[in-house]
Amino acid sequence: MMSYTAWIISIGNELLIGKTVNTNAAWLARKLTLLGYDVRRIITVPDNEEDEVEVFRDAIRRGVRVVISTGGLGPTFDDRTSEYLAKALNRKYVINDDALRLVIETFKSRGLELTEPRLKQAKMPEGARPLPNPVGTAPGIWVEEGNTVIIALPGVPAEMMAYSRTTWSLNYVR
Amino acid sequence: MMSYTAWIISIGNELLIGKTVNTNAAWLARKLTLLGYDVRRIITVPDNEEDEVEVFRDAIRRGVRVVISTGGLGPTFDDRTSEYLAKALNRKYVINDDALRLVIETFKSRGLELTEPRLKQAKMPEGARPLPNPVGTAPGIWVEEGNTVIIALPGVPAEMMAYSRTTWSLNYVR
Repeated sequence: MMSYTAWIISIGNELLIGKTVNTNAAWLARKLTLLGYDVRRIITVPDNEEDEVEVFRDAIRRGVRVVISTGGLGPTFDDRTSEYLAKALNRKYVINDDALRLVIETFKSRGLELTEPRLKQAKMPEGARPLPNPVGTAPGIWVEEGNTVIIALPGVPAEMMAYSRTTWSLNYVR
Repeated sequence: MMSYTAWIISIGNELLIGKTVNTNAAWLARKLTLLGYDVRRIITVPDNEEDEVEVFRDAIRRGVRVVISTGGLGPTFDDRTSEYLAKALNRKYVINDDALRLVIETFKSRGLELTEPRLKQAKMPEGARPLPNPVGTAPGIWVEEGNTVIIALPGVPAEMMAYSRTTWSLNYVR
């Protein structure tokens, strides 16, 4: 059986100041291991362009098979993982039509207004696919580059975990 | 006030398979932050030479002020952080006289035999200083290279935490 390498990238200052214990990473590591992946790194970086771009590029350059990031997908001004990921990939950061539909549906079904910061959640690197978020509002992101699949998930544990029961089946990454 | 950068390096396969949640890193991150450090990375790597050497060298190359590692200091065959750290520093891996005294004392006071694997705990990179372990048997390691102070601590949480109450006062790293 071939072994596939995986990295987990945890994004968030709350982890770097020790306010939050990184239970997401342990949960993902266990899940990836049970699926047959060889998790080679868990890296926590701050919410900023330089660090996020660097770590995504590093993973791609090394040909890591699957990279899962958590955090930075929310509606607030400092949630910029999607934008930085586009930069790391040298791709445009654009409104994704499928993501826009998902975001509009979610906000409608909750009777929430569609504001500019909320619309931001439909912007993704060009060529990415949105992953419906069964719990929160920000869609996840699935994007491929060379040999690498990058899956960006929200940092809220309940949202992060909900994905595994729905869309992102790593069994397809072969 | 100047801000000093810090990295936390967590060593251990148990973290990468999701068997263990990395509470050590959160504890250290909180402590470093309260001491005024800017924690820029928390990186978990497997217990192997290539990955450990790479991450220590990367921190030194970037001039990170304080690097704290946890794990890989025990007596078993796969506890090789001290040896890999010597490699990362391009230094000899030698019996440290002060460490040897500490190890002998510890084992004597517990009525334990001084076996070859236990003696290994007195081996360190040349020029390093041992940090007495108030709880377990493996001394910690304090070693400086260029602008960087590297502190290697055991991975057992009770041992890791015990250090902060005794020897490794980061207040001295200025």
